[in-house]
Amino acid sequence: MKKIRVYVAGASGKMGQEVIRTILKEEDLLLVGASDTRHQGMDVGFVVGAPRVGIDITGPLEIENLRSSRADVLVDFTNPQSVLKNSKTAIMAGVVPIIGTTGLDEAEIGEIRTLVEKEKTGAFLAPNFSIGAILMMRFARESAKYFPNVDIIEMHHDQKLDAPSGTALKTVEGILEVREPMVQGHPNEYEKIQGARGADIAGIHIHSVRLPGLIAHQEVIFGGLGQALTIRHDAFSRETYMPGVMLSIRKSSELTELVIGLDNFLD
Amino acid sequence: MKKIRVYVAGASGKMGQEVIRTILKEEDLLLVGASDTRHQGMDVGFVVGAPRVGIDITGPLEIENLRSSRADVLVDFTNPQSVLKNSKTAIMAGVVPIIGTTGLDEAEIGEIRTLVEKEKTGAFLAPNFSIGAILMMRFARESAKYFPNVDIIEMHHDQKLDAPSGTALKTVEGILEVREPMVQGHPNEYEKIQGARGADIAGIHIHSVRLPGLIAHQEVIFGGLGQALTIRHDAFSRETYMPGVMLSIRKSSELTELVIGLDNFLD
Amino acid sequence: MKKIRVYVAGASGKMGQEVIRTILKEEDLLLVGASDTRHQGMDVGFVVGAPRVGIDITGPLEIENLRSSRADVLVDFTNPQSVLKNSKTAIMAGVVPIIGTTGLDEAEIGEIRTLVEKEKTGAFLAPNFSIGAILMMRFARESAKYFPNVDIIEMHHDQKLDAPSGTALKTVEGILEVREPMVQGHPNEYEKIQGARGADIAGIHIHSVRLPGLIAHQEVIFGGLGQALTIRHDAFSRETYMPGVMLSIRKSSELTELVIGLDNFLD
Amino acid sequence: MKKIRVYVAGASGKMGQEVIRTILKEEDLLLVGASDTRHQGMDVGFVVGAPRVGIDITGPLEIENLRSSRADVLVDFTNPQSVLKNSKTAIMAGVVPIIGTTGLDEAEIGEIRTLVEKEKTGAFLAPNFSIGAILMMRFARESAKYFPNVDIIEMHHDQKLDAPSGTALKTVEGILEVREPMVQGHPNEYEKIQGARGADIAGIHIHSVRLPGLIAHQEVIFGGLGQALTIRHDAFSRETYMPGVMLSIRKSSELTELVIGLDNFLD
Repeated sequence: MKKIRVYVAGASGKMGQEVIRTILKEEDLLLVGASDTRHQGMDVGFVVGAPRVGIDITGPLEIENLRSSRADVLVDFTNPQSVLKNSKTAIMAGVVPIIGTTGLDEAEIGEIRTLVEKEKTGAFLAPNFSIGAILMMRFARESAKYFPNVDIIEMHHDQKLDAPSGTALKTVEGILEVREPMVQGHPNEYEKIQGARGADIAGIHIHSVRLPGLIAHQEVIFGGLGQALTIRHDAFSRETYMPGVMLSIRKSSELTELVIGLDNFLD
Repeated sequence: MKKIRVYVAGASGKMGQEVIRTILKEEDLLLVGASDTRHQGMDVGFVVGAPRVGIDITGPLEIENLRSSRADVLVDFTNPQSVLKNSKTAIMAGVVPIIGTTGLDEAEIGEIRTLVEKEKTGAFLAPNFSIGAILMMRFARESAKYFPNVDIIEMHHDQKLDAPSGTALKTVEGILEVREPMVQGHPNEYEKIQGARGADIAGIHIHSVRLPGLIAHQEVIFGGLGQALTIRHDAFSRETYMPGVMLSIRKSSELTELVIGLDNFLD
Repeated sequence: MKKIRVYVAGASGKMGQEVIRTILKEEDLLLVGASDTRHQGMDVGFVVGAPRVGIDITGPLEIENLRSSRADVLVDFTNPQSVLKNSKTAIMAGVVPIIGTTGLDEAEIGEIRTLVEKEKTGAFLAPNFSIGAILMMRFARESAKYFPNVDIIEMHHDQKLDAPSGTALKTVEGILEVREPMVQGHPNEYEKIQGARGADIAGIHIHSVRLPGLIAHQEVIFGGLGQALTIRHDAFSRETYMPGVMLSIRKSSELTELVIGLDNFLD
Repeated sequence: MKKIRVYVAGASGKMGQEVIRTILKEEDLLLVGASDTRHQGMDVGFVVGAPRVGIDITGPLEIENLRSSRADVLVDFTNPQSVLKNSKTAIMAGVVPIIGTTGLDEAEIGEIRTLVEKEKTGAFLAPNFSIGAILMMRFARESAKYFPNVDIIEMHHDQKLDAPSGTALKTVEGILEVREPMVQGHPNEYEKIQGARGADIAGIHIHSVRLPGLIAHQEVIFGGLGQALTIRHDAFSRETYMPGVMLSIRKSSELTELVIGLDNFLD
């Protein structure tokens, strides 16, 4: 079996380390390089708390390093300042970038698309690598065809600044593709205290719970005659994303176009 | 065993019927009269879907009927217009009123208290007869001593007009007896869509879900270092209240003062 | 708009009554007849607690009544003794039977199929009319492709005799279409008290909770790296089944073959 | 304010490290020593991933080290082989041992008790330092007075070997202090597949779910007329235990007797 050769950018970050730890356990994947501004020159195994691997962390990603590593894919969990440059570097080197870093705007995605088309080297971009969360959104969309009444409760640790969460908004977006905007609840309902009924988007109410101890959880509750249908996802740790990242690596290595969204790799 | 003699006012209403059906099954309780403006003259058994009982529904409650029934207690589930008059009638007749009807204001409760003191016949008033809901509130109050961070999610059918529910507000009230007001969530958190973080009372956030199919549910979620403690109550039907009503009947029959709240009858 | 003409067999039963109450509210459906051995000769409206409808309950279903009603479909919620005869009577009369009664064995279903083929009048048979439960099973099947580890918790009132529930077994069946049998849990795990790990079917564990107050609930919990995905259905009352029955009526009225399972009518 | 002086035995273990990280953040606690067979001679800050503390890890616990540290308490998370010796050493040195290590048998606890009485230096022993779990058990015990019907669902990661969990058994024990053994469920219920109804202890059924991704969760579900009351605890990480350990340190420093169970330190 020919192994897929993986280069990791942002190797010293929390996601980067987790990605490396996971790759080291997978039989069909081979780590061939790692870049980061932190821990430069250190063996990557030592950085992630594993035995010596024999690969040192280079500084910022360089096209020469990528080329000489003969990587098939570049997994990028760096930062908004580096991700565009890294992705373009990868494509120029004939390496498919798997972009987990958020923060690319429409224009920048356009740049990547143009380069992909010119170079015939694909790219993969995912706002969310959690297969469970993506199934939740998919099932929510499907349920809304039969149960138009739905509330969403998303629960996160109390260090999260924004509410509602991006996943909750994404879930609503999917539901609204199959359901018309409508009034939910009683037309004459009223709030004795402002905000009780949550954030209202086209009739769908989102409720954001923030508590210490929690991690990242979401419940989508559909109500119908005499029944409720609930779809819940609990992310307990960063490991949540690993099956999605590994799936992306396996599906992307021979990509020749720009693909956006992990959903494309699920049946 | 001497049975407790019970008179029911509001016998034809949904709660009244449920109360009667339950009393008929209890060995230590005896139904001795039933009043309602509806179904006047009909056998009470027929009205509640049970076999013939031999007691006809009288019209509005009259002191003569109460007296001649030799009732120990009067269970009142009528309406805000009748409850004060019925309660006073009962006390005058030496019958302890068990008041389940809501809508009495402070002045009216004061009138009852005065009459109770004068007549030496007690009265019992409960805003909530659900033992489960009362335990939930008690446990929430106790948990808040150790876990000051708490969000409340209350879920009801979509015909409910007000949000948050009375039970949710009552729960917060209990918690604030043991916990100082404080900021919960990150001090810099912000709502991308208004209302996402729910109704904020002294730092506690209440989220009101309204969906068809649901009945009456509440979750009190405490978050602490690496953990969550959740107390949930589900009321699936009107039967929910019956154990609390029966307990009140048993505990009230010899009452000589005004007692408010089912909590007083739980250990 | 031409209304769909519906005849109900088993009109006095709990499900039959609920079906009739629902049909009376639907604008595109017309109740044209009702049979039952109970309440013979009474107006069907009175039987179901609605205003007078102008249709009396006949005794057991007769082909003449069905024919003269010009029904399009026959909804059958009778009993295992009548269902086969009723279904064949309907097909002979050119009326599509919608069979909600359980208890038909393979041979009897074969008889219906043969008759359907001969008469060119279709028939519809569903073991479960709850759209929510069917979506739950569908989502469970889909999730198992990505999350092979799954436990099922089904919760019912304590008057239910058998465990696990039919729906739980059906859910497992669906999952096993996409997942190989495997050992779940640690290979060396052991029960300190027998039964702790539940019923084991091809590695999937089913846990049956029985408590007073509960109605019919099921949770399918998938566990994966750092996450859980949960699909839950709560049936709070008999109304749960009505959207599925109405959908079946609308989809069956022109059927010319035997269709089994509500799943066929969902996209 | 005089700080409480804390010595930690088992400093290099997972619990020991977590305890040290937490102590370093608490203003009223002072770390004065740390022993472990691992990382001997290394600065304890380095071992736990914090800045230099200025305290080196000694080898196995020695009475001289304890004495010269002038510790008030010794927190012991070592192993069944060391815990008895360490506890006795502490008491002899006039230091209150806080024993988190499990595995002491009745005879060994007796030895500690005898020594405590002789030396007038107290000791504290807790099988569980999770305040949330202890509240859950307390609430379960209280609920059972009003709701005798109860099922327990405990859910853990799939590397756990034994089922049911110790906490589930402890919960049942507490419930049985206030509730008589009784038959739950229908007297004629039957299992179509063995184990479906879980482990039965005096009528209470425990269901053990084991799935990858899960951590440590328990739900105690009480069912009553038309309702359910659920108490749930989720432990997401080792941090769960820290508030209980810190509380124990604060409450134990002047102890002169043997106290068993964190429950004694909660109001």
